[in-house]
Amino acid sequence: MERVFNHEIMSEIQSRWSPRAFSTKPVAASELQALLEAARYAPSCSNEQPWRFLITDSEDKLARLRGVLDESNQVWANKAPVLILVTSKKQFAKTGKDNHWQMFDSGTAWGYLSLEAERRGMITHAMGGFDREKARREYSIPDDLEIITVIAVGYYGQKANSAHSTSSANNRRPAKRLMRSFYSRILRLTCHSGSMNLFGFQPLIDTK
Amino acid sequence: MERVFNHEIMSEIQSRWSPRAFSTKPVAASELQALLEAARYAPSCSNEQPWRFLITDSEDKLARLRGVLDESNQVWANKAPVLILVTSKKQFAKTGKDNHWQMFDSGTAWGYLSLEAERRGMITHAMGGFDREKARREYSIPDDLEIITVIAVGYYGQKANSAHSTSSANNRRPAKRLMRSFYSRILRLTCHSGSMNLFGFQPLIDTK
Repeated sequence: MERVFNHEIMSEIQSRWSPRAFSTKPVAASELQALLEAARYAPSCSNEQPWRFLITDSEDKLARLRGVLDESNQVWANKAPVLILVTSKKQFAKTGKDNHWQMFDSGTAWGYLSLEAERRGMITHAMGGFDREKARREYSIPDDLEIITVIAVGYYGQKANSAHSTSSANNRRPAKRLMRSFYSRILRLTCHSGSMNLFGFQPLIDTK
Repeated sequence: MERVFNHEIMSEIQSRWSPRAFSTKPVAASELQALLEAARYAPSCSNEQPWRFLITDSEDKLARLRGVLDESNQVWANKAPVLILVTSKKQFAKTGKDNHWQMFDSGTAWGYLSLEAERRGMITHAMGGFDREKARREYSIPDDLEIITVIAVGYYGQKANSAHSTSSANNRRPAKRLMRSFYSRILRLTCHSGSMNLFGFQPLIDTK
C-alpha cells in the first residue's frame, strides 16, 4: 500500500520504514556514534535523559542479545550487524520520584536515532517481540530500569528468510477510521467547532 | 552552555531546543497539519499508532487547556498559539492486551513532530507540569487513554515573563558522568570489550 503524503514533510520521515531485510554489512563505529548522538539530543522531562542503551556490534555479543529475541524476529534480525537494547530509568535521578515520562522520552530518543539512520542510508527496526525478563536476567539489569525494545540497525539487504508478510512500508490509518472508533464520544464533545480534535492521525488533514 | 556535537547530525536535531519564549503569531492550519502528518508516520509496535492528540488553536479552547497547566508553565505557555494534549491508548486495539510500548511509541511521534516543526521554523516545548487528573475530568478522557504531556507549538518570540532560568539550549550529560553512576556494575559487566555498553549518551563517542 503506497503511502500518500498530504504535506511536504521531512524526507527522512517520508522514506523511513521498518524493513526486515538486513544486509550483514557492518556499521562503522563513527556511523553508530552519530546515531547515538542524535538520540542523545532528544528532549526529555527536566532534561533527565532517562534512556539507557545496551549496544551490541560484535558477533559474540550479538549472539547473546539475539538469544532473547522471539524466533519470529530471529529469522531476520540475526543478520543485523547492530542490536540495541533500549532501557529507561524509571525514577528521576534528582528526586527518586517515579518518572511518568521515561518511556515517552525514550521513544523520542529512538525517533531521533531512526531519522538520523535514515539520513545516513541505514535502516532500523524496533522489536517488541522478545523476552524482557530473560533480557533482565541475562544482563542483570536492575529493576529500576524499564526494558523496552530491541532495535536492529544496519543496511538494507536481501529479504532472505522472513516469514513476515510485510515487505514494504506500512501506511497509516485514515482519519475516517478513527472517527468511527469508540472515541466518538470525545470527538463529538470536542470536534464541533473544528478547532479542537482528539485524534491519532489527521482529522485536521482529511476531514473532507 | 554551548552544545558540542562530535558528529555531523541532522541539522534539525542540532538546532532544536525547548524555548519558553513564544510569540503570539498564529500557526497556519496547513503548517499544523504538516506537523501532525510527521507525527503520524512515526513507527509503532504492530503499527498500532497509539497516540491520540487533542489539538487546541482557538482562544476559547486554548484557555480551557491552559487551565490544566501548572502556573509556572502558564506564565510562558499562555502565549503559545497551539497547545496539544498528548494521550495514548493503553491497550492494543486488536487484542485488548496492554500495550507495553504505547508511551514509547507516542514519544516517537512527538519526536517526529518536534523535528518537522524545527524544519519549518517553529518551536515546540513539551510540558510535564500540568494536572493530569484535571485534564481527564475536563475533557472526559476515558481511563484507557494515558495522559502524557501538553506540547506548546508556535514561533519564537520575546521572553516576556518567565521565571525559568533556562533561556538557551540545554546541553547533555557527558559520558563520564554516566560512567560514575550506579550503573557502573552493568558497565563493568558489559564494557570490558568496548563493543557493548549500557549508557544513556555517548560512551562510544567520548570514551577518550
